Amino acid sequence: MNPQQLKELLAAVAAGAVSPEQALKDLAELPYADLGFAKLDLHRELRNGLPEAIYAEGKRTDDLLRIVERMLQGHGRVLLTRLRAEAAAELLAAHPEAAYHERARILTCGAPSEPLPGSITVLAAGTSDLGVAEEAAVCAAWFGHEVERHYDVGVAGLHRLLDNLAAIRRADVVVAVAGMDGALPTVVASLVPAPVVAVPTSVGYGASFGGLAALLTMLNGCAPGVGVVNIDNGYGAAVLASRIARSAAKR
Amino acid sequence: MNPQQLKELLAAVAAGAVSPEQALKDLAELPYADLGFAKLDLHRELRNGLPEAIYAEGKRTDDLLRIVERMLQGHGRVLLTRLRAEAAAELLAAHPEAAYHERARILTCGAPSEPLPGSITVLAAGTSDLGVAEEAAVCAAWFGHEVERHYDVGVAGLHRLLDNLAAIRRADVVVAVAGMDGALPTVVASLVPAPVVAVPTSVGYGASFGGLAALLTMLNGCAPGVGVVNIDNGYGAAVLASRIARSAAKR
Amino acid sequence: MNPQQLKELLAAVAAGAVSPEQALKDLAELPYADLGFAKLDLHRELRNGLPEAIYAEGKRTDDLLRIVERMLQGHGRVLLTRLRAEAAAELLAAHPEAAYHERARILTCGAPSEPLPGSITVLAAGTSDLGVAEEAAVCAAWFGHEVERHYDVGVAGLHRLLDNLAAIRRADVVVAVAGMDGALPTVVASLVPAPVVAVPTSVGYGASFGGLAALLTMLNGCAPGVGVVNIDNGYGAAVLASRIARSAAKR
Amino acid sequence: MNPQQLKELLAAVAAGAVSPEQALKDLAELPYADLGFAKLDLHRELRNGLPEAIYAEGKRTDDLLRIVERMLQGHGRVLLTRLRAEAAAELLAAHPEAAYHERARILTCGAPSEPLPGSITVLAAGTSDLGVAEEAAVCAAWFGHEVERHYDVGVAGLHRLLDNLAAIRRADVVVAVAGMDGALPTVVASLVPAPVVAVPTSVGYGASFGGLAALLTMLNGCAPGVGVVNIDNGYGAAVLASRIARSAAKR
Amino acid sequence: MNPQQLKELLAAVAAGAVSPEQALKDLAELPYADLGFAKLDLHRELRNGLPEAIYAEGKRTDDLLRIVERMLQGHGRVLLTRLRAEAAAELLAAHPEAAYHERARILTCGAPSEPLPGSITVLAAGTSDLGVAEEAAVCAAWFGHEVERHYDVGVAGLHRLLDNLAAIRRADVVVAVAGMDGALPTVVASLVPAPVVAVPTSVGYGASFGGLAALLTMLNGCAPGVGVVNIDNGYGAAVLASRIARSAAKR
Amino acid sequence: MNPQQLKELLAAVAAGAVSPEQALKDLAELPYADLGFAKLDLHRELRNGLPEAIYAEGKRTDDLLRIVERMLQGHGRVLLTRLRAEAAAELLAAHPEAAYHERARILTCGAPSEPLPGSITVLAAGTSDLGVAEEAAVCAAWFGHEVERHYDVGVAGLHRLLDNLAAIRRADVVVAVAGMDGALPTVVASLVPAPVVAVPTSVGYGASFGGLAALLTMLNGCAPGVGVVNIDNGYGAAVLASRIARSAAKR
Amino acid sequence: MNPQQLKELLAAVAAGAVSPEQALKDLAELPYADLGFAKLDLHRELRNGLPEAIYAEGKRTDDLLRIVERMLQGHGRVLLTRLRAEAAAELLAAHPEAAYHERARILTCGAPSEPLPGSITVLAAGTSDLGVAEEAAVCAAWFGHEVERHYDVGVAGLHRLLDNLAAIRRADVVVAVAGMDGALPTVVASLVPAPVVAVPTSVGYGASFGGLAALLTMLNGCAPGVGVVNIDNGYGAAVLASRIARSAAKR
Amino acid sequence: MNPQQLKELLAAVAAGAVSPEQALKDLAELPYADLGFAKLDLHRELRNGLPEAIYAEGKRTDDLLRIVERMLQGHGRVLLTRLRAEAAAELLAAHPEAAYHERARILTCGAPSEPLPGSITVLAAGTSDLGVAEEAAVCAAWFGHEVERHYDVGVAGLHRLLDNLAAIRRADVVVAVAGMDGALPTVVASLVPAPVVAVPTSVGYGASFGGLAALLTMLNGCAPGVGVVNIDNGYGAAVLASRIARSAAKR
Repeated sequence: MNPQQLKELLAAVAAGAVSPEQALKDLAELPYADLGFAKLDLHRELRNGLPEAIYAEGKRTDDLLRIVERMLQGHGRVLLTRLRAEAAAELLAAHPEAAYHERARILTCGAPSEPLPGSITVLAAGTSDLGVAEEAAVCAAWFGHEVERHYDVGVAGLHRLLDNLAAIRRADVVVAVAGMDGALPTVVASLVPAPVVAVPTSVGYGASFGGLAALLTMLNGCAPGVGVVNIDNGYGAAVLASRIARSAAKR
Repeated sequence: MNPQQLKELLAAVAAGAVSPEQALKDLAELPYADLGFAKLDLHRELRNGLPEAIYAEGKRTDDLLRIVERMLQGHGRVLLTRLRAEAAAELLAAHPEAAYHERARILTCGAPSEPLPGSITVLAAGTSDLGVAEEAAVCAAWFGHEVERHYDVGVAGLHRLLDNLAAIRRADVVVAVAGMDGALPTVVASLVPAPVVAVPTSVGYGASFGGLAALLTMLNGCAPGVGVVNIDNGYGAAVLASRIARSAAKR
Repeated sequence: MNPQQLKELLAAVAAGAVSPEQALKDLAELPYADLGFAKLDLHRELRNGLPEAIYAEGKRTDDLLRIVERMLQGHGRVLLTRLRAEAAAELLAAHPEAAYHERARILTCGAPSEPLPGSITVLAAGTSDLGVAEEAAVCAAWFGHEVERHYDVGVAGLHRLLDNLAAIRRADVVVAVAGMDGALPTVVASLVPAPVVAVPTSVGYGASFGGLAALLTMLNGCAPGVGVVNIDNGYGAAVLASRIARSAAKR
Repeated sequence: MNPQQLKELLAAVAAGAVSPEQALKDLAELPYADLGFAKLDLHRELRNGLPEAIYAEGKRTDDLLRIVERMLQGHGRVLLTRLRAEAAAELLAAHPEAAYHERARILTCGAPSEPLPGSITVLAAGTSDLGVAEEAAVCAAWFGHEVERHYDVGVAGLHRLLDNLAAIRRADVVVAVAGMDGALPTVVASLVPAPVVAVPTSVGYGASFGGLAALLTMLNGCAPGVGVVNIDNGYGAAVLASRIARSAAKR
Repeated sequence: MNPQQLKELLAAVAAGAVSPEQALKDLAELPYADLGFAKLDLHRELRNGLPEAIYAEGKRTDDLLRIVERMLQGHGRVLLTRLRAEAAAELLAAHPEAAYHERARILTCGAPSEPLPGSITVLAAGTSDLGVAEEAAVCAAWFGHEVERHYDVGVAGLHRLLDNLAAIRRADVVVAVAGMDGALPTVVASLVPAPVVAVPTSVGYGASFGGLAALLTMLNGCAPGVGVVNIDNGYGAAVLASRIARSAAKR
Repeated sequence: MNPQQLKELLAAVAAGAVSPEQALKDLAELPYADLGFAKLDLHRELRNGLPEAIYAEGKRTDDLLRIVERMLQGHGRVLLTRLRAEAAAELLAAHPEAAYHERARILTCGAPSEPLPGSITVLAAGTSDLGVAEEAAVCAAWFGHEVERHYDVGVAGLHRLLDNLAAIRRADVVVAVAGMDGALPTVVASLVPAPVVAVPTSVGYGASFGGLAALLTMLNGCAPGVGVVNIDNGYGAAVLASRIARSAAKR
Repeated sequence: MNPQQLKELLAAVAAGAVSPEQALKDLAELPYADLGFAKLDLHRELRNGLPEAIYAEGKRTDDLLRIVERMLQGHGRVLLTRLRAEAAAELLAAHPEAAYHERARILTCGAPSEPLPGSITVLAAGTSDLGVAEEAAVCAAWFGHEVERHYDVGVAGLHRLLDNLAAIRRADVVVAVAGMDGALPTVVASLVPAPVVAVPTSVGYGASFGGLAALLTMLNGCAPGVGVVNIDNGYGAAVLASRIARSAAKR
Repeated sequence: MNPQQLKELLAAVAAGAVSPEQALKDLAELPYADLGFAKLDLHRELRNGLPEAIYAEGKRTDDLLRIVERMLQGHGRVLLTRLRAEAAAELLAAHPEAAYHERARILTCGAPSEPLPGSITVLAAGTSDLGVAEEAAVCAAWFGHEVERHYDVGVAGLHRLLDNLAAIRRADVVVAVAGMDGALPTVVASLVPAPVVAVPTSVGYGASFGGLAALLTMLNGCAPGVGVVNIDNGYGAAVLASRIARSAAKR
């Protein structure tokens, strides 16, 4: 049950369309749905402003089917990350209205009831960082934000970044995705006033140690104003960016 | 030269109080002041919204005196972090209008020309995290934000956090400071809709490895919506929180 | 030879049903069975209270068949952990009375001669932690303990944990399994008086570094009362929990 | 307010010696005492069975004095760990009834209302591990348990351990403290049926990396039944051991 | 050309069977054979007492065939480590007199001209350490030493080690192979006077970190007299053990 | 004996000024001077083009005095790095012609016989990196190169770097010194065609881990053309830069 | 557009063969070609002296085909590293004039317009380091340098290195590739005056930790004059070596 | 009681000089002396061939005095490592016959009853490694071995090593001590047939990480025949070298 659904229910009660008894029953639903192997957190949207997303990696397709069904029933929409193409095919067969975003490895079903405020700009340093950047961009768009992309703007060719600087400076939040040296978020933070969400990726030669090098660079950036999320965690970056954008809007 | 000073200069020109020639000369100043051993970045406020702060650790007192003088001349105010008490005493002797915040190890001089929008709430998990939390809180307040503190609210006594939850939920941004297990930001992010800036501290027994344990916890939080800054970096947290609060306000 | 078998042997001697000479011969068996490539520790149960379990990972199926046979001969029962499904099929063909627990990847054969005292509660933070949690739960149950499960109760949705708190507080020992931030055991230890056995899992995004993040969180928990075992080591958690439950019972 | 105090209060109400109104007022106290810089968790004993201990490292002596006073008022007793000798002298001057345990660096004030069940045996591998072992032993004794010590019984001279094995096997819980290779807990766990609480210490040559080597050894012990706590964390070991001993006793 | 071949050549010259000119030509051979992609070190035996062994991992089978041929021509014998079964089959087809040791993944061809002095005892802590232990044992035997094996004698069942102690104490060198906690070499070194060569293996649960835990344990052993080689490096252990045994014999 | 001294000696022999016998005696000197506790490498200049420098850290002042004397005798000049001010004072008392460079912590005595070719530009990202940058600059100048400095040009204020770009592009080699994020060398390498020698410094907040973060950034730079030296190793950077500059000159 | 093309264009304008208007249009091309998913940096050669190379790992074959076409159009030549054999086959089908270097996993297309100055010598310590060494050698040759190779000259057989020392000393730059202990670059730097580019490889037993051991050795070399690049990064070594060689030539 | 003392006692019994009853009493002494805080292992010499040494670091002077007295009473001699100069002065006052070796930080008292076989050669790579090298050399000499030293023979000046090679090749065991790159043991092992005991030291610039770099180099040496001990552990190296030398002698 999302805030919109809650408001409608209460309005219906006020209008006499729904009896208090029935409303009570609707609300009596546990704040999570217990599937035995999982407890779906159905009130997360009420608490945090965004519905729970499903991390599909390592989950069996039949479990995913059950989870999707239950989430659609509770929320009217659902988003799955880290979904391999084969499982996506099975889910699309059952839910033809869903969409699979291949580069991002995300399946979305349903749409936000209304657009969310704030513009989120996603930057990728290199072409190998595209998968993670798309995970962030697709999530943020599905949450309801306006999303702008600038890819392959890493510091190896600074002019590619500077050329797009005017556009980037207009963003409410910048998500900067980078592997290897991970220097992009620091450089961006020194050039724009918006908060920067930094996402290290596991892209790189041996001594990147699976993204550790980029992660440390981002944490040690000499230009402050950067918040770092986990390696390759495009989804987490989108959630943080969305909270920032919505925080701005609530006043 | 901060945006306010710029606006006033231009108004003075428009009003005929300052000749264009004089204005040109004032503006002709390099965007940095070259002290030989340092190039003070005087346009950072124009670019990023906040003036450059001075990281005092390892700097000689006479160098600090020169830097403070030059910054006051350029900006009208200055903030020094990681300042040991002895150096603070010398600086206070030269600038009696300044203030030294002992727990935070910060010296501030001057004040913001006008309050900045947004309310920033600073949480500390334990009493040993107070120094870092105060660094964040004092900076944020000096930037011009409204700041609220809730200290010693770590997960070892969850009721201390839950008791203050209603107040915390009102924040535009939450800065959560924690050492040891570093679990506080994750738990907070699961309970409030605001973006959470997480600051790991180097407090803890042996296997905290100087804050590495808390840092990794915060990066791996199962509740998204958290941006992590460097270990013990209260100042960096304040800058990120300020950018978030100002981003909200610009619409 | 387990303690029960030893008691029976001695009773038989006392009753004249077995001659001292024969008993001597039975006892003369080496405390381990030398298979050449392995020395099965047949007195471990006498020494430590639990029979040796077989770690099947990396062992050839024919070796496993020989080990199972020899263990059944010595103890009347056997448990194999980390057993891949294909090898399980071959072992089940040879020992149809055995059972294979798929999620836990465990094969059990035989049952405890009598129930062991104490109730062990197994918690899993997320659905991806289920395999490890089941390894702990199946082992503990096979040892002879009463086992209760609460899955998907991680701190991302604290109400799921608090809803089940009354039940959890009744446990003699709590086994808390968590990947990612690994915060669950600390939070549980702050809420219940029982000892908590913490099991980090290798589940998570890049900077979990194969479970290192969760491991460090658990070692650094701000709430004391937690003992940590190796990453993904559900079996070790069950043995420790069993020792705790039996320790309680011996007085 | 500890359970004993609570029972007495309720009995007094039942006996008419205290009015319900007065009892309500007594109980109305917040579950924590807010000192501004700290929120003392006064209900921890009700929740977890042991009062909060004070980690004195890095705290100022005057803060410690205030905390001790408030804890004595709330609980009638208090324990401080990691207390340097100079601060101890000041606290002893104010509270002559307190005692300072020099090797353990612990100050205790007051005693348990009644002995706790279970016998806890503390082992130290080498003489350099004594400080940490004493921290565990002094805490456990102050909690109310019977404590037995066997020091300098590391695996470099196995006979020193085997000589004391019969006594060690009688323990309800064994706390095994070791630096360097950290092999003691594993060897002990292979020889006794009791749960073993392992404490790595930071003692050792270069490649011990501040206790990391011992920590990893203990986590990787080939004999299960070991729960590991943080490096040098004797207090945490005592709490876990106490929980185990009390768990046994509650049936 | 090994020392034996050299001695024979010089004897032949002394006896007039070979002309000095011919001897010169034989000796004129470069100390290495240049195959373009490799420079085989043919004088290593003269310098270090043992011929160069071939590390087969990652080498193409046809390259291996060329190397084997050239080594046999220069030394009369050859040993390959880390050889996968398929490549072994091809090599055996070309050199039917060779032997493939499956567990050790070693191919040997030819034999030492005379036995080397000293008895080398190889211990393995667990059955999963057998591959590495066999690599050490097969190499040592092929070098010409007397080799004795005691497998599955880890500290989880100390009696298995103590039962074989008398035999182990007779060794000139002990090679102790162990994964997981890696405690075996330390315990052995505390019980026998011979030098102990310790080999950590990559066997273990998550926090063994690919053998790092065992490696650190061995380096930090509280009983001195242990020399550590690389993780899983059975061959290196055999060479060190052989040097020790031969050093003893040269007086 | 440096190449210049050697050339003069040979010329003197050719001119009859020095007898071959005397020259032989001069040359007969061992290529190192054995002081018992040290073997000074007097032919390093012949072999590598630069005389051996003395790493003064941890050396006793009297040992340093002996070394300086012997080096002056062999080479006519000497350079000491990492020299604390007190020891410098004693050395200056004995050798008034020497000079102590305080920020660089270097003592130099004597000068190059002739200038070396090539211009070396030293960059420092922040003012805290000055000590290391000066170590590089002072060494390079003493070797005989032309040295240019640009300090405080880190990526937090990109315009400070771009303003000086034209000058930097003229360098034959660039030495880029940076702590914290360590991004400067990568950005420079993307903007200039010269080889870049990168020096990470140990400057930074907690997660810089003593310079590890900057080191990894530099190794993972997305713009190639960078060679990295050890953390804080300004001297090593100067030697590498000098080799590069001289390599250029030899054609 | 490379410098040669630029010179020709300007000459054509000077000669009247191309109108200024047309030249302007030719030059008006953006400094990068935006393919949507990638921004090809076409002015890198103007800026840094070498065209951008394509890192093929993880890129789809059809993307590679588009990139190759665009690069050939812009530069007349292209080089792809880390190209798997199957993709190479498809690219060769489309561009028969290209060449695939199997050991180096490189595809080259086109040639330098003129040879570059300076001789680059590539050393490999062992036969397992050949792939990385060839990546460096093939790149350097394709850039236009003279390249000399000495393989299998690691310190395990020092005579193999010393035998080739005279040749190695003639190099303008030495690229030294080594796995395992990584000692080769240090030893080489102590014997030759040229700058040494060190490339650690991920070759080795367990405790090489994917090349970390070799990397650290190279950074800690006791003989200065070494610049280190990333693990297995033969391409990066070639670029640095080329910059060094060209720096030498520009005077 | 060492073997010599035991032999004498038994001879005295055989000769009637000591009654069996008295001998029994003498032998009845526990194999360790329990000082309460320490259990001195008096039979270590019988078991391992060398008496227990006392690691003085962190021990109080009065404890050291008691231990020294008890060791002298049991063994007739004693050795303390890591002894700070001030404590040494107090011990020398009480035991004027003892000797303090300043560089090695060792105090020795008493001498071996007879020389031990085998010649041990100790190498140090640089002058900063001297303290650790002397710890090894002084210990080995005190055990009773012939010891030869070659210091400052690291690979930065290979000729210093090669010059002394003939002497080094005569050793029964080589102890090679090195910090920084740690390459010395590998190079030595490639040139001599004796076993090499490698000791990494914590000497070096930042990325030596307290000796980790040298440690890894030594474990990954491409020339086999090396056994590694802990960082800075000169004593451990001496014990291993002594075991090797004595192993050789027992045949």
